[in-house]
Amino acid sequence: MSFGNKLGFTSDYMEGAHPKILENLLKTNLEQTAGYGLDEYSLRAGEKIRKACNAPEADVFFISGGTQTNALMIDSILRPYQGVISADTGHISGHEAGAIEFGGHKVLTLPHHNGKLQAEDIRHLLETYEQDANHDHMVMPGMVYLSHPTEYGTLYSLKELQEISAVCRSRNIPLYLDGARLAYALACPENDVTLPDLATYCDAFYIGGTKCGALYGEAVVMPKHDYIPHLFTMIKQHGALLAKGRIAGIQFDTLFTDGLYDAIGKVAIDAANRIRKALTEKGYTFAIASPTNQIFILFDQEKADALCEKVEMGFWEKPDADHVVMRIATSWATTDAAVDALIDCL
Amino acid sequence: MSFGNKLGFTSDYMEGAHPKILENLLKTNLEQTAGYGLDEYSLRAGEKIRKACNAPEADVFFISGGTQTNALMIDSILRPYQGVISADTGHISGHEAGAIEFGGHKVLTLPHHNGKLQAEDIRHLLETYEQDANHDHMVMPGMVYLSHPTEYGTLYSLKELQEISAVCRSRNIPLYLDGARLAYALACPENDVTLPDLATYCDAFYIGGTKCGALYGEAVVMPKHDYIPHLFTMIKQHGALLAKGRIAGIQFDTLFTDGLYDAIGKVAIDAANRIRKALTEKGYTFAIASPTNQIFILFDQEKADALCEKVEMGFWEKPDADHVVMRIATSWATTDAAVDALIDCL
Amino acid sequence: MSFGNKLGFTSDYMEGAHPKILENLLKTNLEQTAGYGLDEYSLRAGEKIRKACNAPEADVFFISGGTQTNALMIDSILRPYQGVISADTGHISGHEAGAIEFGGHKVLTLPHHNGKLQAEDIRHLLETYEQDANHDHMVMPGMVYLSHPTEYGTLYSLKELQEISAVCRSRNIPLYLDGARLAYALACPENDVTLPDLATYCDAFYIGGTKCGALYGEAVVMPKHDYIPHLFTMIKQHGALLAKGRIAGIQFDTLFTDGLYDAIGKVAIDAANRIRKALTEKGYTFAIASPTNQIFILFDQEKADALCEKVEMGFWEKPDADHVVMRIATSWATTDAAVDALIDCL
Amino acid sequence: MSFGNKLGFTSDYMEGAHPKILENLLKTNLEQTAGYGLDEYSLRAGEKIRKACNAPEADVFFISGGTQTNALMIDSILRPYQGVISADTGHISGHEAGAIEFGGHKVLTLPHHNGKLQAEDIRHLLETYEQDANHDHMVMPGMVYLSHPTEYGTLYSLKELQEISAVCRSRNIPLYLDGARLAYALACPENDVTLPDLATYCDAFYIGGTKCGALYGEAVVMPKHDYIPHLFTMIKQHGALLAKGRIAGIQFDTLFTDGLYDAIGKVAIDAANRIRKALTEKGYTFAIASPTNQIFILFDQEKADALCEKVEMGFWEKPDADHVVMRIATSWATTDAAVDALIDCL
Repeated sequence: MSFGNKLGFTSDYMEGAHPKILENLLKTNLEQTAGYGLDEYSLRAGEKIRKACNAPEADVFFISGGTQTNALMIDSILRPYQGVISADTGHISGHEAGAIEFGGHKVLTLPHHNGKLQAEDIRHLLETYEQDANHDHMVMPGMVYLSHPTEYGTLYSLKELQEISAVCRSRNIPLYLDGARLAYALACPENDVTLPDLATYCDAFYIGGTKCGALYGEAVVMPKHDYIPHLFTMIKQHGALLAKGRIAGIQFDTLFTDGLYDAIGKVAIDAANRIRKALTEKGYTFAIASPTNQIFILFDQEKADALCEKVEMGFWEKPDADHVVMRIATSWATTDAAVDALIDCL
Repeated sequence: MSFGNKLGFTSDYMEGAHPKILENLLKTNLEQTAGYGLDEYSLRAGEKIRKACNAPEADVFFISGGTQTNALMIDSILRPYQGVISADTGHISGHEAGAIEFGGHKVLTLPHHNGKLQAEDIRHLLETYEQDANHDHMVMPGMVYLSHPTEYGTLYSLKELQEISAVCRSRNIPLYLDGARLAYALACPENDVTLPDLATYCDAFYIGGTKCGALYGEAVVMPKHDYIPHLFTMIKQHGALLAKGRIAGIQFDTLFTDGLYDAIGKVAIDAANRIRKALTEKGYTFAIASPTNQIFILFDQEKADALCEKVEMGFWEKPDADHVVMRIATSWATTDAAVDALIDCL
Repeated sequence: MSFGNKLGFTSDYMEGAHPKILENLLKTNLEQTAGYGLDEYSLRAGEKIRKACNAPEADVFFISGGTQTNALMIDSILRPYQGVISADTGHISGHEAGAIEFGGHKVLTLPHHNGKLQAEDIRHLLETYEQDANHDHMVMPGMVYLSHPTEYGTLYSLKELQEISAVCRSRNIPLYLDGARLAYALACPENDVTLPDLATYCDAFYIGGTKCGALYGEAVVMPKHDYIPHLFTMIKQHGALLAKGRIAGIQFDTLFTDGLYDAIGKVAIDAANRIRKALTEKGYTFAIASPTNQIFILFDQEKADALCEKVEMGFWEKPDADHVVMRIATSWATTDAAVDALIDCL
Repeated sequence: MSFGNKLGFTSDYMEGAHPKILENLLKTNLEQTAGYGLDEYSLRAGEKIRKACNAPEADVFFISGGTQTNALMIDSILRPYQGVISADTGHISGHEAGAIEFGGHKVLTLPHHNGKLQAEDIRHLLETYEQDANHDHMVMPGMVYLSHPTEYGTLYSLKELQEISAVCRSRNIPLYLDGARLAYALACPENDVTLPDLATYCDAFYIGGTKCGALYGEAVVMPKHDYIPHLFTMIKQHGALLAKGRIAGIQFDTLFTDGLYDAIGKVAIDAANRIRKALTEKGYTFAIASPTNQIFILFDQEKADALCEKVEMGFWEKPDADHVVMRIATSWATTDAAVDALIDCL
């Protein structure tokens, strides 16, 4: 549960999968099933996700990772002359190596507010575009990209999501939400956005598996049936169609059985909240006020160096020569013992 | 081991993974490791593959599936004005939904010879291009794509591979080989192409995992270190970089320990050879003379319909109204009992 | 009118523009107009073309060259998972340096019949695709590309065009026609396809200017208004939107005034027919039976070498060591004197 | 020389071409030449440009317009994993409809300083990238894009250009300069950047024709011979290779004969300076301090409305409800009489 003998809090994808997932992979291993996600496990996982989202007509399919999912969905939703609106801190903007541009689309960035987009800024961008007499010479805004939690570990309120959705729908702009760490949002006391809300207010979104207890895999949900015609072929064209589709199906079938996805989120959030409490009591400064499984701490460089001897954290940024922001991330795999040991080190 | 109560011989990716793989995933599950393939399991798997290929300088990395691997490698090797030479029956030509063209490249097809390219045809295409006074208006042939086994389950001889490699090297054209089913080539008595041969005669190739016992994953081998600068970023850009890279690493570490990859191939080939023998004895006609784990049988439609009541096979093609070609595929998971039962049905 | 002191019959784009075009450019030169094709000359040219095509609702716009037009229209019509059906000899297949693939699309080739596609072959390809159980793994045929005249200088009959159009419409597949040398088709006695026919049976086509008397420029016609939404932005995105759009507008305004486009075609066809007659009388062999402005002659290599001392021709292909196929092309600029001189040399 | 009966100052591409250009097109019209820019006029124009740039080894070729040129050069210079650094106000960033992203590349924007990039900002971006431990997950900065004059009509000093070039060369980053309006920079008394300076400090640049007196066309200059291998094929692939290449060749041959390109710039700058002087005297406020042929004036909306009754200007932006920024542009075609009339209206 650690790198060498350090405490490991670098990220939420440092272990394998939740043990139940491996158990089910093992149990089903020698069964033969159809390929490419047409197997009964994938179908059953889809059914459970539809139920959890209260979206009986939804199409659900599984993709191996987040960048692939974002690139695929954005390429599939947009027409060539359109771009995707994102916060400047959005994952697709800075940290996906140009995967969106590889598909031919511009990322149209807006300044973030604590990691989030604001409905008013989106509305303003759309109006500015509409009113610009030269807009035929410009990339047309064609969809909106959000993530929940955001890159900063922050959360949209239901009201914020509704407002953004209302702006989008008033102009027929699809709203897409990246839920790479969705379990850690859903488990937050501060969160008031549910899966059915996502199905109500978004045109497409994904429920993250890789960072929420799966070996790999993200579940894409599109509340309206056949929202993107021939998406299967585009998945293949993107190299994102796995022959043994059932492996993802079994994983999501497991995650959506007996509340496992919720339980996974709760472990991480309880751990993060214990750590946050200890940090507060010991007088640490938070660089970002995030309520989810990521904690961003502003350290004196010296203090950070000392702590890094005992704890693996993620480097976030260096605001000046004397300070550094480090990230502590908890996950479904974080144990009470590891949290205790971390708190002892602070 | 079957769909419903039929015998399952549809393809070689209908089960999960070789049990040893699951065993190792389970054993390592709660360890923390670095992400993105920088973990010790991935490094160790790379080391074992380098050894098996007798290619001490080789770079090795892992990609989730075959189409992704082919698209990534072709995009990474070619310049924008170049295309890839392939047999007209090559997987990249017809069955990858345009993934190569999605990356901007033309597939330059040559007529196949029993599923294979011939050195002489490649030489002729290159010479024709060079001699065409208008060739600056045409796509430049920039690399050669082979698969071993081919789409038809056939095998290149070492001599054929050497000849193709010689043509490529005489003109500085990279040679890339798709080994989606490589285990089933290596285990064939007819095969005289070894992993070290591939490392000697190809500039890049991949060792298939998905169809050869892994949950997913292909191991790309490039014998020359840093053959494609910044490939890591291109993997990310293609959406092909998995956060939990170690899952593929552990799988290939397992496949290349104690001869498992060879053993997997042998199970499938032994089963296929038993089936081929029975078919021959019973007077069936082979549509293609393939020595690997895929058997292509020309049936009277009526006979095929009858057999399909009991055995799941893959549809291959329909040459005329009265006949059909079906494919039987064995794999690492094919049992003696299943082979016996199949033979009884013939 | 010649390269050095040879007679020039290499191609139909070796001179500048029809003198009337230059006259009108001169006459309008210092007027100020709106940019980007929104000027009155472009609008007037569009109006005249709509009238000539008997297509009152048609959208018409102007693009600088043929490859640009083909790539733009194909990219604009297809969805990412679709490809374009073309004869294997089609210009987009071999001679546009991969411009279609650059836009992400596969060219799905069918064997040509004297340079042409046949309705039956298209129907068969579409049916094969529809019936293939694996077609979701393949590029979907999404449009048909013809040229008139073809690469071989041959012509579709109205019946052939109608048959192809009927196949396309029965499956909702757009039909696009490349008319780079359309003037030379329209002027042929053998031709029975009119501009109104093109507007009736095609979903988009272009009327060639570059090879038919303009400095540059092709007129795209889409009989249904707003057939491709936001095409203006896609033109810009392709780098195909010229600031001084009026230059193309003035040229097509001229070409479609007082029957100039027809007259241009007639000059070339009359010249070609005189040359064909002389060739026939003198016992030459035609490699292709083309009725338009391109004449393909099968020469003994020795005879060709001798003739090339006096006449510039285009190299077409070398069928064997002793023979060569050369192309003679006439144009709007071919004079009677040049034809006389050429015939003298034969 | 006006739209209807208004004075026309909307932009610098509202007329046809400088009369000398038409004269030469007329004079050479019936000559036959080689196609695709291989004719003697294009070669001669290249030779004159090499001389004007003091760059005897330079490759020179001609492209139809600015967006096409930018997209082509950026696609040709970058590798797929790289992006281009530009000012956020750069033409490629906002006003080319995503042409750069269509080619698969991200535009990496930096805040502008009066329309310009600063060497220090570029250095900082490159260092930040180099030092970011996660930079393999990000788009690599692969070249720098400048324009001279900028979108704001401002000019780089030679010192600024040298500093930017030094930063680029210290890291082997190509420097590319967009000279769409270069004539209007070269003619400015404030300008100290010469064509030989561009050839010394840039790796590629283009000399604008469309906005500087040509019917269309931009001359790309690459000081090092064969700087981009197979560029001809990439030009074709982009649809940017015109069959009658000589038309651009003749235009640039004319522009670089007897100092015409300089003279064209001087007409526009003299006119702009007279207008600027009058504006200053009459107490107008400049929104941007630009010394070239574009004048940006901050108007009370009411005053602007009144002036627009008599003068065609370009809308630039609307900073608040009561004000508007309009652009007056002069060109090679601006007459003294038009300037007098404009000044009378102010």
